[in-house]
Amino acid sequence: MKTGQELYKKAKKLIPGGTMLLSKRPEMFLPEHWPAYYSKAKGCHVWDLDGNKYTDMCIMGIGTNILGYGNEEIDSAVKRVVDNGNMSTLNCPEEVYLAEKLVTEICPWADMVRFARSGGEANAMAIRIARAASGKDKVAVCGYHGWHDWYLATNLGNDDGLKEHLLPGLDPLGVPKNLKGATVPFMFNDFDEITNIVENHDIGVIKMEVQRNMPPKEGYLEHVRALANKHNIVLIFDECTSGFRDNLGPIFNNYGVIPDMTVFGKTIANGYALTAVVGTQAVMEAAQNTFISSTFWTERIGPTAALKTIEVMEKLAPWEQITDNGNYMSSKWQDLADAFDLEINRFGIPSLSGFSFISNSALEYKTFITQETLKQGYLGSTLFYSSLAHDKNMIDEYANMLEPIFETISACEVGKKDITKLLDGPVCHGGFKRLN
Amino acid sequence: MKTGQELYKKAKKLIPGGTMLLSKRPEMFLPEHWPAYYSKAKGCHVWDLDGNKYTDMCIMGIGTNILGYGNEEIDSAVKRVVDNGNMSTLNCPEEVYLAEKLVTEICPWADMVRFARSGGEANAMAIRIARAASGKDKVAVCGYHGWHDWYLATNLGNDDGLKEHLLPGLDPLGVPKNLKGATVPFMFNDFDEITNIVENHDIGVIKMEVQRNMPPKEGYLEHVRALANKHNIVLIFDECTSGFRDNLGPIFNNYGVIPDMTVFGKTIANGYALTAVVGTQAVMEAAQNTFISSTFWTERIGPTAALKTIEVMEKLAPWEQITDNGNYMSSKWQDLADAFDLEINRFGIPSLSGFSFISNSALEYKTFITQETLKQGYLGSTLFYSSLAHDKNMIDEYANMLEPIFETISACEVGKKDITKLLDGPVCHGGFKRLN
Repeated sequence: MKTGQELYKKAKKLIPGGTMLLSKRPEMFLPEHWPAYYSKAKGCHVWDLDGNKYTDMCIMGIGTNILGYGNEEIDSAVKRVVDNGNMSTLNCPEEVYLAEKLVTEICPWADMVRFARSGGEANAMAIRIARAASGKDKVAVCGYHGWHDWYLATNLGNDDGLKEHLLPGLDPLGVPKNLKGATVPFMFNDFDEITNIVENHDIGVIKMEVQRNMPPKEGYLEHVRALANKHNIVLIFDECTSGFRDNLGPIFNNYGVIPDMTVFGKTIANGYALTAVVGTQAVMEAAQNTFISSTFWTERIGPTAALKTIEVMEKLAPWEQITDNGNYMSSKWQDLADAFDLEINRFGIPSLSGFSFISNSALEYKTFITQETLKQGYLGSTLFYSSLAHDKNMIDEYANMLEPIFETISACEVGKKDITKLLDGPVCHGGFKRLN
Repeated sequence: MKTGQELYKKAKKLIPGGTMLLSKRPEMFLPEHWPAYYSKAKGCHVWDLDGNKYTDMCIMGIGTNILGYGNEEIDSAVKRVVDNGNMSTLNCPEEVYLAEKLVTEICPWADMVRFARSGGEANAMAIRIARAASGKDKVAVCGYHGWHDWYLATNLGNDDGLKEHLLPGLDPLGVPKNLKGATVPFMFNDFDEITNIVENHDIGVIKMEVQRNMPPKEGYLEHVRALANKHNIVLIFDECTSGFRDNLGPIFNNYGVIPDMTVFGKTIANGYALTAVVGTQAVMEAAQNTFISSTFWTERIGPTAALKTIEVMEKLAPWEQITDNGNYMSSKWQDLADAFDLEINRFGIPSLSGFSFISNSALEYKTFITQETLKQGYLGSTLFYSSLAHDKNMIDEYANMLEPIFETISACEVGKKDITKLLDGPVCHGGFKRLN
């Protein structure tokens, strides 16, 4: 057994759930065989604990590193912070520079900013501020927004409230039962459902992603914005996943509809921890009427890395390349599926492309892809989160390698081969699952 | 006006509340004159944006940097992380090494660990896990535990619920009103109150600090532990503030009473962002029955810095020196007060010592101390959070400088001078307050 899997066996005894992020659980990729841990990451390459080098053709740090792992300019700025002190009794000026950049250039409709260090807490902060501003507690929610009580409350009394929002079947244990009804889910692109919800509940906040698996229908965001205006609701577009992936800022720039608040995470500091809540003064000032404060929000690496990341993004404008890459990979998947008579569903923002097999053996096939690509030096799955370190030649090579894999899957799908006999270990998990 | 104050004027327009941490608001020290921002911090020295160098004789990054700012060994480890990649699709092995260290050496009574990056979210995570483990939502709470809903809910319908817990008069705007009654405060060292609360409420979790302003009375922690056992309650000792200050781990080691869970923060990574929830397997396994997951909890700097900080602490055993320093400074304050017929209250864990004047002009006097010490190159207040970079000579020098300041305060107290005429700007804030 490789060192990473040995360490992960130990981790499962020490850490409930094994990892800090569900999406990085080895079981989500290749149980018992995924390298699990890294010693080094650079560009789009990752080295495991045994010194094996892989090309990352899957989630690129769960989409954090648009500029690739280890961007020299950003890393140099971070090392200067380390040399000059990450923490002190005084505040770091970079948080003000970053706030100014965000409200003057990235979100000119906004006035004020608060920072945090993880996406879940930034979303919880946005909800606190929005509830304080609206004076109402009820939230209508669509999309994925983290692990906090306000969000998981959706599933109280209904384990499938978040079924369509990435967390099917989640039992929200430990979320106070009094929050039942405080968060009401609505389906993306359904005009009537959100209308009915705001007309029949005393909604104070609408929180949504504007684009994950598909873009908004024409007029949909305008419809939500009009409802928010009419009912005095604070509208939040969560851009933790989508921000800085399609342009220098929120993906909602593409649709001409402006929220009252937005949240940035993942991409904003190219792999360093920094998240931001950005909004209009009318809403953000409510933060002054409640208590939102944390020691480590004053550390200096986060805002420094974000400032430098935005500067590098301004220079390199990575959006065209990562979008092209994503579309190219996605078209390759479709070509392969067509060539071997397989049915697939493709989804995602182009730079966060994915597909799933339409088959009862979909998870087995996904596991098989990871197993076979890993043998050839790739971290591969049915997702491809592109970075500037990826180019079309790499995608061509990867797609060529996928060809016999799809051919085998096709043989399984028509009963000529047995996928269960081709797997060297257990099938990957499809989502949240208790570990044994 | 100095550059820092200029920038802070801008910050107040861009950031509701001006800073990320209430305790680092310039108004908490010296409104209109505090340097506000730093360019560099090293040892116990801090440089402002104009290149002025100050000796930090107050909060040392709010107590984060026991080993001083910029410890070479820790910073070198962090820079290696930057060079080798802070983030990847795979997990960082350091989180497992740190988890193992925590449960085998620091907390041998514990079995499992989850990490976060700020204290507020770590406390929210501990509460989620504890509620899931106990199956009950109600929390009895004592001490300070952050900004999240579960905690501020204490003040719903009673603005003074947290009066004795650092947040007097806080209106918890934006906290769902349905959480009213979910958190019940109790007074530290009051045997009867906690007994009555657990006997009259269906409490699932007791969360407390074991020592902040004063140590526990003999038998008090044993009493709380026995109540928790009797009523099947999960007991959490929050060590975010007190941990690693008196020994290599939790301060409750001094009292021989073991909780089911504990939370570390502030000190554990010497100024880098890392927090930890540590507990028994029986309780921590409940984390597997709920959803607790965040992208930036997978970054590598935090656990690497914590591992190295613990290693350096093992070598240098800073507790004796910082405790001696704190006691020495505290005795100097008392000597000065006695010499000038001033009444003061001293409080705190020795390495987090503080005092307040017993006077109607207490805040004016505190402001005056900061004003006058700042003029002489010190960040000074009525708090002294000691680090290894401080020694007794420095404390002697600082105390000598305080002598004429206390003399002036004494003259004000007896009516010979007017403190309001001696202040160059507004009086400092005494706690949470809306900024204009």
